[in-house]
Amino acid sequence: MLEELKEKVLKANLDLVKHHLVLFTWGNVSEIDRRSGLVVIKPSGVDYDGMKAEDMVVVDLNGNVVEGDLRPSSDTPTHLEFYKAFPEVGGVTHTHSTYATAWAQAGRAIPFYGTTHADYFYGDIPCARSLTKEEIEGEYEKNTGLAIIEKFKGDKIKPLEVPGVLIKSHGVFAFGKNADASVYNATVIEEVAKMATITEQVNPGVVRADRFMMEKHYQRKHGKNAYYGQKK
Amino acid sequence: MLEELKEKVLKANLDLVKHHLVLFTWGNVSEIDRRSGLVVIKPSGVDYDGMKAEDMVVVDLNGNVVEGDLRPSSDTPTHLEFYKAFPEVGGVTHTHSTYATAWAQAGRAIPFYGTTHADYFYGDIPCARSLTKEEIEGEYEKNTGLAIIEKFKGDKIKPLEVPGVLIKSHGVFAFGKNADASVYNATVIEEVAKMATITEQVNPGVVRADRFMMEKHYQRKHGKNAYYGQKK
Amino acid sequence: MLEELKEKVLKANLDLVKHHLVLFTWGNVSEIDRRSGLVVIKPSGVDYDGMKAEDMVVVDLNGNVVEGDLRPSSDTPTHLEFYKAFPEVGGVTHTHSTYATAWAQAGRAIPFYGTTHADYFYGDIPCARSLTKEEIEGEYEKNTGLAIIEKFKGDKIKPLEVPGVLIKSHGVFAFGKNADASVYNATVIEEVAKMATITEQVNPGVVRADRFMMEKHYQRKHGKNAYYGQKK
Amino acid sequence: MLEELKEKVLKANLDLVKHHLVLFTWGNVSEIDRRSGLVVIKPSGVDYDGMKAEDMVVVDLNGNVVEGDLRPSSDTPTHLEFYKAFPEVGGVTHTHSTYATAWAQAGRAIPFYGTTHADYFYGDIPCARSLTKEEIEGEYEKNTGLAIIEKFKGDKIKPLEVPGVLIKSHGVFAFGKNADASVYNATVIEEVAKMATITEQVNPGVVRADRFMMEKHYQRKHGKNAYYGQKK
Repeated sequence: MLEELKEKVLKANLDLVKHHLVLFTWGNVSEIDRRSGLVVIKPSGVDYDGMKAEDMVVVDLNGNVVEGDLRPSSDTPTHLEFYKAFPEVGGVTHTHSTYATAWAQAGRAIPFYGTTHADYFYGDIPCARSLTKEEIEGEYEKNTGLAIIEKFKGDKIKPLEVPGVLIKSHGVFAFGKNADASVYNATVIEEVAKMATITEQVNPGVVRADRFMMEKHYQRKHGKNAYYGQKK
Repeated sequence: MLEELKEKVLKANLDLVKHHLVLFTWGNVSEIDRRSGLVVIKPSGVDYDGMKAEDMVVVDLNGNVVEGDLRPSSDTPTHLEFYKAFPEVGGVTHTHSTYATAWAQAGRAIPFYGTTHADYFYGDIPCARSLTKEEIEGEYEKNTGLAIIEKFKGDKIKPLEVPGVLIKSHGVFAFGKNADASVYNATVIEEVAKMATITEQVNPGVVRADRFMMEKHYQRKHGKNAYYGQKK
Repeated sequence: MLEELKEKVLKANLDLVKHHLVLFTWGNVSEIDRRSGLVVIKPSGVDYDGMKAEDMVVVDLNGNVVEGDLRPSSDTPTHLEFYKAFPEVGGVTHTHSTYATAWAQAGRAIPFYGTTHADYFYGDIPCARSLTKEEIEGEYEKNTGLAIIEKFKGDKIKPLEVPGVLIKSHGVFAFGKNADASVYNATVIEEVAKMATITEQVNPGVVRADRFMMEKHYQRKHGKNAYYGQKK
Repeated sequence: MLEELKEKVLKANLDLVKHHLVLFTWGNVSEIDRRSGLVVIKPSGVDYDGMKAEDMVVVDLNGNVVEGDLRPSSDTPTHLEFYKAFPEVGGVTHTHSTYATAWAQAGRAIPFYGTTHADYFYGDIPCARSLTKEEIEGEYEKNTGLAIIEKFKGDKIKPLEVPGVLIKSHGVFAFGKNADASVYNATVIEEVAKMATITEQVNPGVVRADRFMMEKHYQRKHGKNAYYGQKK
């Protein structure tokens, strides 16, 4: 069942290690098969070393395990909320990557300081609010997703235009049209977070770059007349 | 004698290198066999490169070498105090890992800033006081252990709930139910120390995360109804 | 056509990965064949992994593709402006390397703080101005080159004496007598940017090193009576 | 001639790469054969990749090349001053390692903040003064050595007790009883410099650790009754 997708999701999870985004079992990636409405996700707390495609868990959008001997990631309910709220999202990555998590702990959105950021994020990378005591003691992981969705809907942010978000005192979620793209975006967030940290260190009075520069860089990669890369 | 344990302790020591926690011969790991009361520990000042299981040294709780051709780690008396004071501790790791040691040199506990921390540490990672001149000129390594135990007992900290500690102007000790777990926790301390450094850089006015978030994250991994990871 | 040069340009591009200057497809290197006036450059948005010499694109100084199945780097017009304005430049590298890009985002030239800098850069590494809205919405990549050339000509900087430049809110361009030398200089810029960051952190009141020290170090490597390295 | 020593000096130079202390050809190591008064040193500006023992250059204490087809390191005159001034020094390393060079550029000695430092350095790691215009325009490399020697003699520092030094706006020299030990100490300087940077970041008001702690740690490794490591 969904064997090809399991291979893709496995590879995407292993790329977290390759891109130095995770320690131990921290972090997870999923992808949805929109035709069947089924989601393939990493199992919970399993080592990346020696992980196999058949270890991937298949769940439906209600969180029921449809296939797999292992428990799905404990963050599965967060992933599912994204797939339900954002039909354009096909893949989700969660990490505690060092610099981005520090910004999440600091409770700050990552400001647009340059073209590295604008090549992938059409605006600041937002930081969702802390959860309340009730939200945390209730359906915590689901509520994490809801707080992020509240942020995106409230600020009219489109998840494939700003394909990532920090959550206060926690870490990073990244989006993509598939699992692979979400890992790519998670990697960019970590690099952009590191650059922003050093930028502010070198110039504490730095302000955001010009909006028209963001527009140009985002559009040359992702707009109608994009001319970066090869013709598809 | 304790051949299996020597293999485990060897592997745990080599993991210090794998996780970038040590330079040269800095750092050491031990594990106790509670039935016999014997402790297996790394030899002093020996290169990790080419180290073998038979190089591990077996000592009793009084520090007598029971087996082994090499001298045990000079930090052995510190390890032994932990095993005597904390019956639940089965493994101990000592490192001078970069960020955590910087916090130790700064004389500061690492504040709870987020879930990465709370997943493993149920509260701030404490910093034990400096030793006095008399303590340093006397049984220095033993007194290092005693100062840490004083901190844990004084502040009612349980070593498997907060499985690590800094010691002022020195470095890191981490605890675990066995050698492997103590290395794991030492790795987390270094990462959490790095994140906390950047967090404060990005937001100098940052305060601790909410206590109920710490509670939730710690309990979902370590509590009675833990649901992180696979069923054992 | 220019097979040997393609091999050189391929190798120079792969060295960006080796020296940790690029993530994914970020960054590109070119070299000009002055006899034919043709430039060999990396294709746009193509993975370094598995890239081959025949993937390199040959363009003329007007930007026409003369050979190659792939689109040239989107930054090609910037490279071409340099080759037109600076006859002594034979190779150009563009990166978003972390520390140097942070200085670019901060909008600051990298001050001459020591001999590591002076061994390769005869003065501060300049930061070119932001482009205007018109420049960005027009021939953006070409205008990027023109803004840099304006900086060099305006400040009477010679591109082989100060073989690199930051551009505000963007990244790094480095020059060399060939592709390989430009990658070398891009690597030095990243290291010098990191050192300058830490230097200012450790001593916020630091001032530039003495001009006569810069003179000595630059000349012992690059002057008439250079005595660093082996006789050629 | 001195074939065994050439092998040792080659290995010590390659260890600079292994310990991430050098980029490209930056840095060099030498060792003296006290019986013959001859010094073996790295050739100038030669790549570490593919370097062979026979590339090492033999010079006498006046700087005459006694054997070798290549020019010796341009820093040779600095090394020779150390061998002449300090009979106990058998090996010398020069690097531009990142953090230590930043402290040199900042013009600050590295303060004793903890036991990692004290295990190898019996006091602050000093920073020698800037050279004057005359010293730089004259016998620059020799004068670099003399300024360092002036610092050690003036402050009554013994080079094997404080086996390393920064030089203002430049980089690092480390000493040892042989080439290998000097590389070891250069590696420690870089790590201690990084730790000191973070220590001050985390606690801007930090003061030096207690002198009796330094005494204890230095002596347990290097004193008469040293008990760290194995019996020799």
